[in-house]
Amino acid sequence: MSDKSIATIARLSTADAAFHQRLDALLDWEGVSDKSVQARVDDILADVKQRGDAAVIEATNRFDRMDVTHMDQLRLSAQQLQAAFDGLPDHQREALAVASERIKHYHERQKPSSWQYEEADGTVLGQKVTPLDRAGIYVPGGKAAYPSSVLMNAIPAHVAGVREIVMVVPTPDGVVNNLVLAAAHLAGVDHVFTIGGAQAIAALAYGTQSVPRVDKIVGPGNIYVATAKRAVFGQVGIDMIAGPSEIMVVSDGKTDPDWLAMDLFSQAEHDEDAQAILVSWDAEHLDAVESAIDRLLPTLEREAIAHASLSRRGALILCKDQAEAIELVNRVAPEHLELSVATPETWLDEIRHAGAIFMGRHTSEALGDYCAGPNHVLPTSGTARFSSPLGVYDFQKRSSIIHCSAEGASELGKVASVLARGESLTAHARSAEYRINPE
Amino acid sequence: MSDKSIATIARLSTADAAFHQRLDALLDWEGVSDKSVQARVDDILADVKQRGDAAVIEATNRFDRMDVTHMDQLRLSAQQLQAAFDGLPDHQREALAVASERIKHYHERQKPSSWQYEEADGTVLGQKVTPLDRAGIYVPGGKAAYPSSVLMNAIPAHVAGVREIVMVVPTPDGVVNNLVLAAAHLAGVDHVFTIGGAQAIAALAYGTQSVPRVDKIVGPGNIYVATAKRAVFGQVGIDMIAGPSEIMVVSDGKTDPDWLAMDLFSQAEHDEDAQAILVSWDAEHLDAVESAIDRLLPTLEREAIAHASLSRRGALILCKDQAEAIELVNRVAPEHLELSVATPETWLDEIRHAGAIFMGRHTSEALGDYCAGPNHVLPTSGTARFSSPLGVYDFQKRSSIIHCSAEGASELGKVASVLARGESLTAHARSAEYRINPE
Repeated sequence: MSDKSIATIARLSTADAAFHQRLDALLDWEGVSDKSVQARVDDILADVKQRGDAAVIEATNRFDRMDVTHMDQLRLSAQQLQAAFDGLPDHQREALAVASERIKHYHERQKPSSWQYEEADGTVLGQKVTPLDRAGIYVPGGKAAYPSSVLMNAIPAHVAGVREIVMVVPTPDGVVNNLVLAAAHLAGVDHVFTIGGAQAIAALAYGTQSVPRVDKIVGPGNIYVATAKRAVFGQVGIDMIAGPSEIMVVSDGKTDPDWLAMDLFSQAEHDEDAQAILVSWDAEHLDAVESAIDRLLPTLEREAIAHASLSRRGALILCKDQAEAIELVNRVAPEHLELSVATPETWLDEIRHAGAIFMGRHTSEALGDYCAGPNHVLPTSGTARFSSPLGVYDFQKRSSIIHCSAEGASELGKVASVLARGESLTAHARSAEYRINPE
Repeated sequence: MSDKSIATIARLSTADAAFHQRLDALLDWEGVSDKSVQARVDDILADVKQRGDAAVIEATNRFDRMDVTHMDQLRLSAQQLQAAFDGLPDHQREALAVASERIKHYHERQKPSSWQYEEADGTVLGQKVTPLDRAGIYVPGGKAAYPSSVLMNAIPAHVAGVREIVMVVPTPDGVVNNLVLAAAHLAGVDHVFTIGGAQAIAALAYGTQSVPRVDKIVGPGNIYVATAKRAVFGQVGIDMIAGPSEIMVVSDGKTDPDWLAMDLFSQAEHDEDAQAILVSWDAEHLDAVESAIDRLLPTLEREAIAHASLSRRGALILCKDQAEAIELVNRVAPEHLELSVATPETWLDEIRHAGAIFMGRHTSEALGDYCAGPNHVLPTSGTARFSSPLGVYDFQKRSSIIHCSAEGASELGKVASVLARGESLTAHARSAEYRINPE
């Protein structure tokens, strides 16, 4: 074990008296934006709502250091997307295509069907599933522009049958990412605007002269984007408000420590707030992983970020046994869970909360991030307790169907009448009573 | 047609030059809470988060004019719920039981299944569905205490398999509604606290010494409740932020005008902000409904409320034909849609947005509000464009399953490596590359 004073990553044990306190401190994440962010976002939202394109252009010039005078300069054509795709090196174009196909294939399985059933008296009840008319997809720009995020956000919308997919991606200093445009081409995006921040969220939520108003906005973004999404929620639908990405790996001690170290790095390299936690009941194994971390960390391109993330929010946790490991998983409800164990399928029944479960030593999170098929947009910060991966269901909604026969309405009318009068809603009661057959 | 100067309800025609403007004005609804509400809610949330039970007790004494010193005085036992149910008059107990059974039966159909599939190389992909551990249900108290809302919120949670259902219902001045308690008994609620407002939302979101922290909060409430729900969203899941209730009725001119008037009243009697709109291409029929409204309105117990609602937000709209009526429906995306026409089933394919669709002259909304089976918690204010009725799916979440075979991981590793390097995430790439078989 390395000297505690210079340890890269914290070591915890469930046997420690203060374990739960330390774990709570480690997991603590306040995603709340401060009042100054809130106020700036409110101003931008109000400005775009009122002035439309002009406000979007001004904000874009200011925040992305652009110099445009018309929205047409902030719009990419289908031809530009196609050209970006065609211009990629073969290996990148092929990898994108494979990923896209696999993601599409998986998400096809998520499509729910409308259904209905008829009762003895002829009354029909059911549920009708329809896609959204228009979805907006926010794609971060600049350094963290990820083509995989374009695929993961746009393909489920496309599979759901959304009529029009509008993507926004800022291009600070005018820098365009060709892989992002190529992915938009592949994923069936209909419109792309090179705008970002709260001004892009406002444009999508309210519509402008050029940007069509959408019904739902999905996709990750910085604190301004997250704050703006929260503010327009209700006006439009939104996906979750994402916190920093995290992984919890459970190892039975038999996985190569180098593999595990790199799996933790693959999370830690995202940003300094990312969280990577390894749990095992094998103390020597944790020592070996810690050594691997110390040995491999200096070989990373993004060493500084990974180091900051691991030292601030990472942990190697020694637990008692499998049962306690499962307890920890359900307590944390991790975004990504790697079960690096011999028979992960025997664990599955007891895992209640996790965004995505990567099973067995061969299934590293990175495979799921790019191309296994399931979505990489997952609930963070313990929200897997109540949220799901982004999916086709996020781009559809249901309508209840009620078609009473005369006989059915008569019987239901009697029940409704009693209950409505119990609530002193007598117009409800009388509306129901009109449908009762005189006998 | 009645004299315009004293008309109870507005008459619009799609042929009017200003029609779309007038419709927009009619539909306009700002659910945004002002800064003073926001500040008061923030204070209450912070106080409950920090001081727990003590803060809840103080707020309850203050806002609900109670005088309690301990949370036990704000808790109802299973025996009390049972006693409330047993003590109901027979016809009410039976009506509640019939409604409860029908709601349960319908929602059973909404239960999704976990699924998985295996690829040629042995890789398994899937989706696992699990219920929430704990759901919180907010039930408004006082005058607008609705037992039907208890059934509609708690039964889907119960059907979903939620382990623990916690209900909060304020009892201003200590007034308890026995029908509400009886419904809680019937719907399988586990804990009831007689608290409300932002303090109840805070208690559910953060947990206190007595109130268990829940994973999701559902149920309608006043502006303080709605503001508090928006604030804790992310910390816990929430259902939609509900606006005032609305109905759009489309009539082909053949439904009894008295029936239609009463159907509109059944919406308008809810509150002064409720909205009731009738659409028809038969001008004389609209005249007849207007006369029925004027004749029947004075016979309502809640005449004043219904009158205010109809005159402020109601409308009888003359349109050209069926196609234009459907266009209006999709434009408004009504919470409740009554298709009071001869063959409503032929309309269904073209209806894209509506919370619940009541088909045919016999299916009045009131039947669905209480006992048809589908949920009465529905997306308001046009949010049916992107939201669904409350359902079993609101109390469950999904986890992605990825289990790569050695061969599968090797192939996916190659693709992931290319894409990760394209995003400059080299630890991702190296984690994937470890899984590539040396050949």
